[in-house]
Amino acid sequence: MKVVLIGAGNLATNLGKALHRAGHELVQVYSRTESSANALATVLKCPYTTHLAEVTKEADIFVIAVKDSALQTLATSLLAGRESQLFVHTAGSIPMNVLPFGRRGVFYPMQTFSKSKEVDFSVIPCFVEATNETDIQLLRRLALTISDTVYELDSDNRRYLHLAAVFCCNFANHCFDLGSKLLKEHGNLPFSVMLPLIEETAHKLHVLSPHEAQTGPAVRWDTNVLDKHLQLLADTPDLQKIYQLLSQSIHDSQTSQ
Amino acid sequence: MKVVLIGAGNLATNLGKALHRAGHELVQVYSRTESSANALATVLKCPYTTHLAEVTKEADIFVIAVKDSALQTLATSLLAGRESQLFVHTAGSIPMNVLPFGRRGVFYPMQTFSKSKEVDFSVIPCFVEATNETDIQLLRRLALTISDTVYELDSDNRRYLHLAAVFCCNFANHCFDLGSKLLKEHGNLPFSVMLPLIEETAHKLHVLSPHEAQTGPAVRWDTNVLDKHLQLLADTPDLQKIYQLLSQSIHDSQTSQ
Repeated sequence: MKVVLIGAGNLATNLGKALHRAGHELVQVYSRTESSANALATVLKCPYTTHLAEVTKEADIFVIAVKDSALQTLATSLLAGRESQLFVHTAGSIPMNVLPFGRRGVFYPMQTFSKSKEVDFSVIPCFVEATNETDIQLLRRLALTISDTVYELDSDNRRYLHLAAVFCCNFANHCFDLGSKLLKEHGNLPFSVMLPLIEETAHKLHVLSPHEAQTGPAVRWDTNVLDKHLQLLADTPDLQKIYQLLSQSIHDSQTSQ
Repeated sequence: MKVVLIGAGNLATNLGKALHRAGHELVQVYSRTESSANALATVLKCPYTTHLAEVTKEADIFVIAVKDSALQTLATSLLAGRESQLFVHTAGSIPMNVLPFGRRGVFYPMQTFSKSKEVDFSVIPCFVEATNETDIQLLRRLALTISDTVYELDSDNRRYLHLAAVFCCNFANHCFDLGSKLLKEHGNLPFSVMLPLIEETAHKLHVLSPHEAQTGPAVRWDTNVLDKHLQLLADTPDLQKIYQLLSQSIHDSQTSQ
């Protein structure tokens, strides 16, 4: 398919590379930042522009992968002359209907993208949505050329999927970060000592549900250990609060199921 | 080495198997539960007892791997007749000095053990402590026969290590569990859609610190997304509270570093 990429950030870069490898024709890259546009266009061997007015009018699909806050304004200024084109955005938390196009959709690859680490797109689940069956099938076919796992999902349920991803990725990672701070301040151990534990915690989920996999003092409601841990955190009330709330929530999850 | 195993739970079972495979002689297994003692002794091809009075008096090391709450009482009743023997416990959060023996120590393999999933001991970091250099070296040598990563660590710093492990394992897993509940209630997607994201979140830590790896609306302080997420959680105030506290903590971590 002929694809125009609007945006040149982490997601646009990873997605563009995957589409390129799958044999799609990247027609053009747009970014308002010259260096970003140039860098991505070089990798994708395609022209680029930093002016919205110069974005091409012909392609099978226009993929808008920009900051959430810029999405709607940018989309609106692309409408004229492209009324019959298919535009999709890539944001998990934003409804499809913010796009002003007749043929609009969503192409949400659920993954955490960091600049310095390339990801294997084939294992990333992609969630697609569009206003009519033909476009849904087009998005599904496109997604299947780069990913093994493709679901159709409407905007309402995608909001919850995105929220669940915040818990599973962003909040879990913050727990790792808080653990790393404790390690740094006591005993001078490298954070690498935690990696086998973290990997096993993630790996377990292939054979157990997170509920079944739960271990630790809170699930046993071992108040002796819990109280000692709260004492250790006495100088860091914010951490203590988090410890308390998560332990209580683990405990409540046990009794409610 | 000749090893006596006091306890037959998840940790004792995994540790016993690893020691057995490494060629150590498991002299005896004790558990007050006949079925557990029998099951583990069968695997380790050694005798077992369910009576403390029948625990052997001769071995190079006695490993006590029982519930934290049972540790001290059980240890005390083993003292008579074994005054010159080396006893270690395996608990991350308990100081070495709860053991009443002259030769006492700690052998803490930091991992999350579940009944239904065997673990590769070689990648599990082991933390050892004892009262004299000879016993420390003995524990270090023993640990190195089953693990590639062995550290000496005193009781005070081990408490913080254990606390850090609660954040990195138990709390992270609870974040997975909360995500899984959201998924179950909205859109009927299987939890398996989250596994690539969770694995990438863990895998990233080989090349980035958790602080560098942090992504999501809280790190960008994207109040538009944050507010929408809080609205989605309006019916579950406990979850909303957790969302609020962790997002604030992510935000604070950004500005404090």
